[in-house]
Formats: sequence, structure tokens, C-alpha cells
Amino acid sequence: MIVSDLGEFGLINLIHSNITRYENFGRTPWQEVIVGIGDDAAAWQGDNQIQLATTDTLVQDIHFNLDVIHWEELGWKALAVNISDIAAMGGIPKYALLALALPGELEVENISKFTNGMMDLARKLGVAIVGGNVATAQNVVITVTIIGCSKGGVILRRSTASPGDQIAVTGYLGSSAAALEMFKGKTISDPKLHNVLRQAHFKPMPKIKEGQLLVKQGVKTAIDISDGLIADLDHICESSKVNAKIKVEQVPVRPVVIKNFPNYRELALSGGEDYELLFTADEVTINRAKQTLNCPVTVIGDIIEEKSSTRVNVVDSTGNIIHYKKGGWEHFNYGVSGVKFA
Amino acid sequence: MIVSDLGEFGLINLIHSNITRYENFGRTPWQEVIVGIGDDAAAWQGDNQIQLATTDTLVQDIHFNLDVIHWEELGWKALAVNISDIAAMGGIPKYALLALALPGELEVENISKFTNGMMDLARKLGVAIVGGNVATAQNVVITVTIIGCSKGGVILRRSTASPGDQIAVTGYLGSSAAALEMFKGKTISDPKLHNVLRQAHFKPMPKIKEGQLLVKQGVKTAIDISDGLIADLDHICESSKVNAKIKVEQVPVRPVVIKNFPNYRELALSGGEDYELLFTADEVTINRAKQTLNCPVTVIGDIIEEKSSTRVNVVDSTGNIIHYKKGGWEHFNYGVSGVKFA
Repeated sequence: MIVSDLGEFGLINLIHSNITRYENFGRTPWQEVIVGIGDDAAAWQGDNQIQLATTDTLVQDIHFNLDVIHWEELGWKALAVNISDIAAMGGIPKYALLALALPGELEVENISKFTNGMMDLARKLGVAIVGGNVATAQNVVITVTIIGCSKGGVILRRSTASPGDQIAVTGYLGSSAAALEMFKGKTISDPKLHNVLRQAHFKPMPKIKEGQLLVKQGVKTAIDISDGLIADLDHICESSKVNAKIKVEQVPVRPVVIKNFPNYRELALSGGEDYELLFTADEVTINRAKQTLNCPVTVIGDIIEEKSSTRVNVVDSTGNIIHYKKGGWEHFNYGVSGVKFA
Repeated sequence: MIVSDLGEFGLINLIHSNITRYENFGRTPWQEVIVGIGDDAAAWQGDNQIQLATTDTLVQDIHFNLDVIHWEELGWKALAVNISDIAAMGGIPKYALLALALPGELEVENISKFTNGMMDLARKLGVAIVGGNVATAQNVVITVTIIGCSKGGVILRRSTASPGDQIAVTGYLGSSAAALEMFKGKTISDPKLHNVLRQAHFKPMPKIKEGQLLVKQGVKTAIDISDGLIADLDHICESSKVNAKIKVEQVPVRPVVIKNFPNYRELALSGGEDYELLFTADEVTINRAKQTLNCPVTVIGDIIEEKSSTRVNVVDSTGNIIHYKKGGWEHFNYGVSGVKFA
């Protein structure tokens, strides 16, 4: 069997089981592990705090196209997608390592633009870039690792959703996927919308403060939306052994995206790379979060008992089930930034 | 200017200066940084200990050839080259993240072999593999990040060598580069030697205990030999603002390598990927280290005042200077595992 038959989630499961069957033989570091493979970031018990670490790779022509993205944007995005995983744990990002593999023919100027874009975000969030590695490669491959810690003793996890929880998201979904349609040729005449979409796709702002506020308000369950709303909610459901029902009309989409993209629901449900937070909690907690967070918080559905292999059920306002292809709409694969196994 | 004109070390310097000119604007994480870009690993002050982190990338057809290396060996090596950087800081490796970018056509079985090889070393050294990422790519690109800590409050650095220090190395040099010559076609009839060389190149054992013992004996300065003896000693000299003189006859090489490779000195001086420790200290401290370490320790020269742009001077037993091309012999580029900037 080849890797693409197994699929990316299958591959993660394989690696997970290969690695964890040795856990019992481990020494101290294994014993300190709180969250291993299978959440937004790994977590272990440090001396005074929970420590967090996550890594993510962007590959040229798979996750980005150098004809479209600017180098500053690439630097920002490579850091942002990683920091977003720390946001999804409710943590504080602190240190970053940059492993850069690239062809020798690249203009040096581009590397400076890249680090400028990265530092732009790093400074905003107080992240120190402390090291890394450079290597020759056929294509540009960027791997960033972020090390952080929890704020207090609690972290947000994927495995803690319970039937009765409401499901909520921060911000708006689908703008990043709409940008991809624009880059692929869809005409957008409004320059303001053009900029909004470009920003959404290339310069997402990780929801660090929002994640920390969710922890403070008592939320226990969250993930960031990188693979797409359905796919990421499916991760929560799988991990928490529950099902979910979402009401498609309640999924928040920017009015300009609704106006310009007839397929806006598809974009919002499966487009991915929104880097918003998807979280679940009881109604009272969600209401507290709504009042505290400095961004839109929208309830889009409910966690229900596990009863179906279709873990995420999408319904319209009349209760009719909307069918979708598992794993999202395949033609959105371009731009999707791999799959995390921690 | 393109990246290959600048060279890898030039590129690291560029990234370093791009990033650190913002340091003053940083918040707490920057203030906690003890060692940023420019050593074997980054180091920062944790609550009770110094924390260490390092990352390294192996790129298919640049750093390894899948026609030669077995997948188990690749798993071992990808972890080993990273752990070696923690060894060079005298630290304890604890957690690893694995970012794997690979083509969908790969056999799944190979991934299991890869993780088996990685776990084989991880178990020996008590390292927990806590997470990572998988992504599609045109070639196999493996980035491993190791997070660890110091043993006590001291770490080994590149910047602490002083004139009067002796220069010493653990183990033997040149075996890994000799293996490359064998893989490129040099006939090795002795199967035992074949295995010794293969092991040296594909399954190096990071000198973790040795690094920790050096700290305990009072050594302050070390680096692991990945780029090659001259190149790595040059890193120490640049960082410590000193020069070095090494006596070529004293560089330790396995007798079987001397016997079978007429160019054994070149292999030992510039081959790289030995993953032995190169360290400096006063004579008394070096003698203590010799008695404590459970492996050969050989004094190969002395640290002298900075007086020449050729920071590393190689002499023979009669004191004649041996000239070499800066950056090592270029034809050894295959197999060299990139360049660290932390």
C-alpha cells in the first residue's frame, strides 16, 4: 500500500501507533507527557507550567505558490499557522525555530523579505526566534517549530467535548478559501475585497488572546480551523467520542464573501486555513466567552451523543441533512497546509 | 545576489542579523534567551533549568539517497543528528517533534520502518516523540526538533574557548566520510569494515553522556562534528574570537580507515557527519575528561590568540602548514546535513 491510499489521517494514525506502542518502555519524558500525538500541540508537565510544542511544514507548490504569495507574506504565514496551534491550546507562544530548505538559485533579497514578514508577526506576539537550520533543497520547504506554555494549569484539548455542549467559532469562515478561488482566476473587481481576501489567506492572525480568554472563561475544548470546519470538527468528535450537528445557516461568513461567492457555504464548511478557533462548552460558558472575546463568537450547532459514523452532521434551517464528501471538497487541496499529528 | 553566492554560513549570518535587530523591541521571551542563533542549540532560562531546543532537516538526494540508506537507518539518523546538537550543549534530550514531508507514492511499510529506526534510538536515550506534522511533498524532507534541558546550570557553548586551551575530540574522525566513498563505488572487500563504515554514516550514536560528563568535569566549550573537523573548529574560533592550531598526525582515525583510505586525513579533517564532540579546555580539565569519559579522548591541538583570518591552522609534525580549501573539500557536499544556525 502506498501513502496516498492510506491518506494523511491514516498516516498519522500509523505513526501514532508505531510510536506509542513503545511508550511503556519510556523513561521520565514519556511520563511527563500530557498530550502526545493527536492534538494541536504536544503538551507536557514542566517544572511550574504545562509546556507546549508544535511544528508545521509549508512546501512550495503544495502549500504555496511563489508566483502568488509575496515573501513577506510567506514569512508571516509560516509562523502564523504554527502559532495558531498554540492558540488552539489556549497557550502562550514563546520561542520559534525556523528550518529552511531552499534552492541555491533563490535571490538573497527574498530571504530578507521572508524574515521581515516573520519578524513582523513575531514582534506583535512577543515570540523570540531563537534558532533553526538552513539546508539546500530542490524546492522551498519551511518548517517552523513553536515552543510555548500554558497560561495557568489548563489547556484546551480536542478530547473533552461532551453531548450538550454548544459548538462555536470565532470570526468568519471561508474568506481564505475564497482567496484561493480569486488566485485561481475568479475576477474580484472590488480592490478592498481583494485585500481582505489576500490578508485572510496569507496573513492570518492567530487567535492567541482569544484562546487564553477561552481558558479563563472555563472552555475546555478547542481546535484551530486549518483543515476546514467539518474536518476540524470531525477531529474533535473523533477525539471526544461524540457526534456534532451544525446548522449551515449559522456558520458565519463575511457579507462580501456571501455576495461574491455563490459557493460560500462550501468555502466556509470545507475551505480551511481560516485559523479561527472552533470550540465547545455548555451554554453558560459560551455566553461568557461571547461577552469576553473581542471578536465575533457564533454558535453554529451542538455536540450530541456518538451514534453515527458520520460524526459531523450538517443540517439546514428546516432540519434537512446536507450531504458532503468526507474530508471536504477535494479541489481545495491546494493551499491546505498538511495535517498535524500534534 | 543568489543564495548560493552568499553560501550557507552567509545565509545564516543574514538571517541572524535580520532577526536580532528586532531583539530590543522584544518582550519577555527575548529577555530569557541565553543562546540564540549561532550555537548547536538555542538555550533559554526556564523556571528551574536552562531549556534547550534544536532543529535539523534532511532532504532526499541532498542529504540522503534512498537507493543506499535503509528506512530504519534514516529514522535513526534523522533523530541522531538532532540529538547530537543537544549533546554538544551537554544537555538532556527529552521531547522530539517529527515533521515529515513526503510523496504519496511512498510505500507505507517504509514509514513504519522509519519510525521503528527512530524509536530504536529514542528508547535508548529516553526521548519521547510527542508530535509533529505530515505533508505532501515532491521529495522526502524530514525535520526533527528536539527539546531538552541542561543538567545543572551550565551548558557547553561555542563562544567560550580561550588561548591556552587544548583542543580535544571524542572517538575517531573520518569514518562517516569514508562510508560515503564506499557508497560512491570504492570497493571494500572486508564485510566487517563495510559494517563499521555503514554504521558510522547511518547510525551515529549521539554523545549525550559524554557531553554531560564534560560539563561535570568543568569543560565550557564544545560543538559536535557535523560539518567537518576544520569547519566546526572554525565555528568555535569565530564565536570565541580565537585561532586554533591542530596537528594533523594527532587527529584520531580508525586504523582500518587509515589502511583502506589513502586520503584518510582529508576525510578526518573535512568529511563531517562524525557526530563526535570537539571541545576545548585547559590541560588539567582535559585530563580529567580523559579519565572520566568512556570513549577515546584525543588532544589534537591548541587554541591560540586571534591573529589570522585563517582561523584554523593545520600543521604536520615538523610544524609545516598544511593548506586546505576553506569550507572543506567541496566534493564532500553529498551527505553533509545542512548548516545549523542554532
